[in-house]
Amino acid sequence: MSSNDTPRLYFDDLRVGQRARTGEYRVSAEQIKAFAAEFDPQPFHLDETAARASVLGGLSASGWHTAAITMRLIVDSDFKLAAGVVGLGGEVNWLQPTRPGDVLHVESEVIELAPSRSRPDRGLVKIRNETRNERNELVQVLIAKLLVPRRVPQSGLPPSSSG
Amino acid sequence: MSSNDTPRLYFDDLRVGQRARTGEYRVSAEQIKAFAAEFDPQPFHLDETAARASVLGGLSASGWHTAAITMRLIVDSDFKLAAGVVGLGGEVNWLQPTRPGDVLHVESEVIELAPSRSRPDRGLVKIRNETRNERNELVQVLIAKLLVPRRVPQSGLPPSSSG
Repeated sequence: MSSNDTPRLYFDDLRVGQRARTGEYRVSAEQIKAFAAEFDPQPFHLDETAARASVLGGLSASGWHTAAITMRLIVDSDFKLAAGVVGLGGEVNWLQPTRPGDVLHVESEVIELAPSRSRPDRGLVKIRNETRNERNELVQVLIAKLLVPRRVPQSGLPPSSSG
Repeated sequence: MSSNDTPRLYFDDLRVGQRARTGEYRVSAEQIKAFAAEFDPQPFHLDETAARASVLGGLSASGWHTAAITMRLIVDSDFKLAAGVVGLGGEVNWLQPTRPGDVLHVESEVIELAPSRSRPDRGLVKIRNETRNERNELVQVLIAKLLVPRRVPQSGLPPSSSG
């Protein structure tokens, strides 16, 4: 959790190579089963016995559950973007399952900054987010594409009418 | 929902260009807020008034909620893979927000088939999944990478010891 007076970052405040780390999130068997019952009702996410016989070798969270927990950790972190975390999409890879009892955190790094060519008030930011468990094993990598506002130009010129 | 006797598809049963369509899923404001409260607690996913003032222009589902609903639609569909839907990752793009009252469905197409070089018992399948609303507008595109088992070789040879 961050305090309300954490400064919010604009596109112009970000630098390639900038890093951040979230807090932690403990995942229980009950949470794994509840998410799966709603969004991914497959035996290896719902039932320990069926999961042991599956390709995953034991109860494990839906990849989309790991992704959703990753989002929660990022939203709760001190790395506050000016308009919030507004994602356009991304590339996600699951490298190993999230298991009951795992304690996840996310390590993030800004890897690309591209000012919008058509909209001078915003930019596109790519952030590599590594979700790791308590053994520091890489569980998921998410390359997220975010929309981040630019600071209002500080000159005395009137705002551009091109929007 | 599919019946239990829907045939399950192996890697060898799939063809590039093969298409499938899921059932439908209606998204309520209550579901949008509940998912957001757990995984993406930002004002534009939690509160109508705050959402109207935001870049999204109104209450909208977390992109990860749209992704999770997409997964549920795929798991419930008649397109049944032999070991279930085992995702290694994918590329997701959100093209417009999911709004309260939207009725989503998914249209899928097999776009790539690659037998595993190291494991003759499996293959990698890429499927393009278009999530559309009741106006047939494209809400999300997910290119999913799935692990799909191959049929056991039908020759009389003993199984390879290379696993």
